[in-house]
Amino acid sequence: MTRFALTIEYDGRPFAGWQRQTHSPSVQAAIEAAIFAVTGETVAVHAAGRTDAGVHASAMRAHVDVAKPLTGFRLAAAINAKLAPAPVAILACDEVAEDWHARFSCLGRHYEYRIVMRRAPLTWERGLAWRVPVALDSAAMAAAAARLIGRHDFTTFRSAHCQADSALRTLDRLDVVASGDRISVFASARSFLHHQVRSMVGCLGLVGQGKWSPDDMADALAAKDRTRLGLNAPPDGLFFIGADYSS
Amino acid sequence: MTRFALTIEYDGRPFAGWQRQTHSPSVQAAIEAAIFAVTGETVAVHAAGRTDAGVHASAMRAHVDVAKPLTGFRLAAAINAKLAPAPVAILACDEVAEDWHARFSCLGRHYEYRIVMRRAPLTWERGLAWRVPVALDSAAMAAAAARLIGRHDFTTFRSAHCQADSALRTLDRLDVVASGDRISVFASARSFLHHQVRSMVGCLGLVGQGKWSPDDMADALAAKDRTRLGLNAPPDGLFFIGADYSS
Repeated sequence: MTRFALTIEYDGRPFAGWQRQTHSPSVQAAIEAAIFAVTGETVAVHAAGRTDAGVHASAMRAHVDVAKPLTGFRLAAAINAKLAPAPVAILACDEVAEDWHARFSCLGRHYEYRIVMRRAPLTWERGLAWRVPVALDSAAMAAAAARLIGRHDFTTFRSAHCQADSALRTLDRLDVVASGDRISVFASARSFLHHQVRSMVGCLGLVGQGKWSPDDMADALAAKDRTRLGLNAPPDGLFFIGADYSS
Repeated sequence: MTRFALTIEYDGRPFAGWQRQTHSPSVQAAIEAAIFAVTGETVAVHAAGRTDAGVHASAMRAHVDVAKPLTGFRLAAAINAKLAPAPVAILACDEVAEDWHARFSCLGRHYEYRIVMRRAPLTWERGLAWRVPVALDSAAMAAAAARLIGRHDFTTFRSAHCQADSALRTLDRLDVVASGDRISVFASARSFLHHQVRSMVGCLGLVGQGKWSPDDMADALAAKDRTRLGLNAPPDGLFFIGADYSS
């Protein structure tokens, strides 16, 4: 049995999310089915993050144990061939130690949230960005984002369905990067609560529109109350872009 | 009657090209149908470039004459509402002089061709870039591109179906811009022959793989012979990104 670490890109639009589900297509089930087609083995693929329906990944990290003797290079090529035409691609597949765990060994998770500011509908980016029909004040958004950095109880920014024991999280980075009619919000933490990035970005959108001040953001955080959430941004713009490991 | 200049973004994947056709969906017909739905007028929309099947535009320029009294702002919003769910969007719609012609007044046309170098299939960019499974030598490509700049007979890089009277064209710009696993080729000229950008990029791809030298590119150009074309790149990576006018 060999453990492989996978780096996976996927378009979340046709999927009900990462996690295997009984009646809906998932990224996990698509990859597990492709591996079964290659090896004849029924495997479980474990990911660093379980993204929601419609959320994408440019570099999800995951691991899987395979008995059939194959190099990572050949395994990746074979899985990719079986995945087609699903919009999921194994970018890298490397042999790792048997105690390396994509989820439990993960030291940091990185997301990008993409916003496009324009009145016209999106074309090839439909479902791949949050279209906001007005110009957002990115400087105000950056000031509000700074109020969320650090170790806090993020109850306000947590889905009612979140299963984590504690809402305490340390937000290491929440950068607002503007370029032309685009804003990307980069979020990094050891781990995030369910909907945390989308909830933080939704409220940043209110700040960008002048409906909230940076102080309103700090007040919402301090309230530790989900009913104080201003807006949950849609899944469209969210991309899992990387995960950190010690080795 | 008011003439409006349009700036249009479209995803070429579902279309048989810009130009109206009897039995296939076209971008032109989609926009004309939307304008009919808004105004009740049967119009002809004239574009700066008639892109092929599967070719995209981030800023196609076009014009149309409309009798119904509407501001450009309201006309654009109404057309966009009728275009949905087709991946076509009017980004701008401005009143212009009645002798302004998107095609005949155009002084320069600009294309970007996107290449992604990787073994894994594309996911959300499938059909939006040319995937090349090997690393290309972008410096060699840039050297070869420089051999095409200027006024030449581009017969070698011209489709057999090209209807232009002369194959003489002046290529103003052919820049190779590399970043990570991506290369964009930017091409500018007053006008291009049919398939000229795709044919030039296809041969640049051969240079990038070491199969052609920059001298081979110059020889192919000098031959003025279509059978000397090395490769026609697929439509996937081609985007019409802008057009110039004196006013």
